[in-house]
Amino acid sequence: MEIIMCPGFEAAGIAAGLKKKEKKDLGLIFSRVPATAAAGVFTRNRVKAAPVVLDIKRIKEGICRAVIVNSGNANCCTGEQGIRDAEAMAALSAAELGISEDQVLVASTGVIGEPMPMEKIESAIPRLVESLRPEGIPDLARSIMTTDTVPKIITKQGEVDRKTFTVTGVAKGAGMIRPNMATMLCFLCTDVSAPPGILKEILNKAVNRSFNRITIDGDTSTNDMVLVMANGLSGVDLQQPAHKDVFKKTLDSILLDLSKQLVRDGEGVTKLVEINVRGTFSNTDAERIADTVAHSPLVKTAFFGEDANWGRIMGAVGRAGVDVDPARIDLYFDDVQMVKSGVGCGKAVEAEAAKVLKKPEFAVTIDLNLGQGFGSMITCDFSVDYVRINADYRS
Amino acid sequence: MEIIMCPGFEAAGIAAGLKKKEKKDLGLIFSRVPATAAAGVFTRNRVKAAPVVLDIKRIKEGICRAVIVNSGNANCCTGEQGIRDAEAMAALSAAELGISEDQVLVASTGVIGEPMPMEKIESAIPRLVESLRPEGIPDLARSIMTTDTVPKIITKQGEVDRKTFTVTGVAKGAGMIRPNMATMLCFLCTDVSAPPGILKEILNKAVNRSFNRITIDGDTSTNDMVLVMANGLSGVDLQQPAHKDVFKKTLDSILLDLSKQLVRDGEGVTKLVEINVRGTFSNTDAERIADTVAHSPLVKTAFFGEDANWGRIMGAVGRAGVDVDPARIDLYFDDVQMVKSGVGCGKAVEAEAAKVLKKPEFAVTIDLNLGQGFGSMITCDFSVDYVRINADYRS
Repeated sequence: MEIIMCPGFEAAGIAAGLKKKEKKDLGLIFSRVPATAAAGVFTRNRVKAAPVVLDIKRIKEGICRAVIVNSGNANCCTGEQGIRDAEAMAALSAAELGISEDQVLVASTGVIGEPMPMEKIESAIPRLVESLRPEGIPDLARSIMTTDTVPKIITKQGEVDRKTFTVTGVAKGAGMIRPNMATMLCFLCTDVSAPPGILKEILNKAVNRSFNRITIDGDTSTNDMVLVMANGLSGVDLQQPAHKDVFKKTLDSILLDLSKQLVRDGEGVTKLVEINVRGTFSNTDAERIADTVAHSPLVKTAFFGEDANWGRIMGAVGRAGVDVDPARIDLYFDDVQMVKSGVGCGKAVEAEAAKVLKKPEFAVTIDLNLGQGFGSMITCDFSVDYVRINADYRS
Repeated sequence: MEIIMCPGFEAAGIAAGLKKKEKKDLGLIFSRVPATAAAGVFTRNRVKAAPVVLDIKRIKEGICRAVIVNSGNANCCTGEQGIRDAEAMAALSAAELGISEDQVLVASTGVIGEPMPMEKIESAIPRLVESLRPEGIPDLARSIMTTDTVPKIITKQGEVDRKTFTVTGVAKGAGMIRPNMATMLCFLCTDVSAPPGILKEILNKAVNRSFNRITIDGDTSTNDMVLVMANGLSGVDLQQPAHKDVFKKTLDSILLDLSKQLVRDGEGVTKLVEINVRGTFSNTDAERIADTVAHSPLVKTAFFGEDANWGRIMGAVGRAGVDVDPARIDLYFDDVQMVKSGVGCGKAVEAEAAKVLKKPEFAVTIDLNLGQGFGSMITCDFSVDYVRINADYRS
């Protein structure tokens, strides 16, 4: 039996008229019991949407228990009015939910630079709150979709000291900001209890191991955020080291799973490719190389073409700004060694490698043979459809 | 009357069988008189092709007077044999030209990781040297073409103290490494005289103002090089400050012209866009922002779609890693102001901006309104054809 929603939480998603064709575009997550803590990781983009600015301030209190989210409008580059609109979204929801407005966070995704259609949102909020129910999470997941083709939801449970805790996560589109719509959003509900500081620390690390390791086009949205709310119902307490350890593993695995779901559903994506770099002097070196390879349009178009073009990967390794010795580099597609000590392994292995490239998921491993450093990224191919989708006028 | 070739230099380009269909693939440039100086700027990629390794060593002497160049094979990731092959290309040419082999530079462009077909090159060199003539520069330009659709040649003259000097430049494909072929190459011939140190200094600055400011896909080839040879025939001497000044201006304008030719002929390119950033605290800040905007796949696909999507540009500005105040940013497409103090100027200007976006060349100007810094990049759109061309197996 699949568990849909973490105990104590409810969700809703409705069509408020922000998107065309009566698609769901307004969502709400709510903890029926007071949340014990909330934590968030927000876009590092210096141009931040109004809800991001509001949430960063609000989450410092750490007691938020509701998130209202809309798609179809990013509420970004909207000036003072944008901030007032985000505050109004929170205040209207809070009034309807009967909680204080500073316990409500706001998220938006969509086109940048257009005023929020507040009359539509205002008139929809009572219906949104009415729709709240434990099994509402798939509706919420649909209400935040933009160029996503499938909703992304996952629930996992962990056990420690005979107590079972649950983490439910929902996410949408990463690194594939579409003209009309933008942003990577991820909302997490859990029934552990924790002081906000510990929750934040665990969330940061999990994000670094998951969402910060995936790339579709390297662009970072003005609206990106990952939020977690914890209501304590399970009795699992992150102040206890054993509890914390188990929770960390569960959260890591939830976020990694959602990350892969995002890449797989990326705009025009046909392949998911893990770039593993090892044998560098430091982990930082390995991460820089993995990052450069994962972002190279030439490497990514070659993946799309199912072309075992290791020369492009060598070229990307060389321009990562890291000290390498080209004559020591080994390179593999899955288990097929293509390059040994900087020189190609010849035509025979190319046929083997071509088989790997045809798979929907595979790994590229680059061994610098210099030290013990390791780093990895999850990337995808760059397809004709990616360009088509993104060249389209904001329509 | 267009001047084709700088006095004292000759060139040739023939088909040696490295490319298919009897296309020209082997070229030579030669100064009939001893060159006074040569200088080069080479790829910063840590993975360097064999000819690059050879030339970096050889150019330190600064007296090179010939360049042999092939397309169809990059001679990169070819190990010790690759170095021996590059040396043999120089030695065979030198013997045929009757000069010492350390006066010959080598350049290659093409697929990475395949051995050089040395028997073809060896048997073609006598014919190549025989073909040398002052009017041979268009043949040379064709012999280095890969995905380029037109040859890129320019000659300019300058005058100082009643002496006329000439600079002839030829270039091929930049930042658009194709599977089967790679590399930005530029060869310059001039009849000024100069110590290598001064020539190198002027070349470096000119490259920073031109080739280092253009981007097609952000990838840097393992084979990139810009070479200049000077034979002194004009009597213009760069040790005299007035001569140096005039020569610098001519070289700057030649390289900027060739740079724009490269971008215009980039793979699948339909638009050339100048990204101007001003009003930053420093020039470095402006350059970082211009660089981030110029490389953003989302911005580039929007250019292709003729979409005045300023939100994507704001997003790229925000993630450049530079301190900005979003509420002070102004943004223009040519003269049409789209954003004032961080907020969009509304639907009325969008129609005006749409007209600008339809032009084959236009400028995006971003004013941070913080200081006096300035930086700019020349970029292009990212089209469906770019992906198609680059996804193709090395064919």
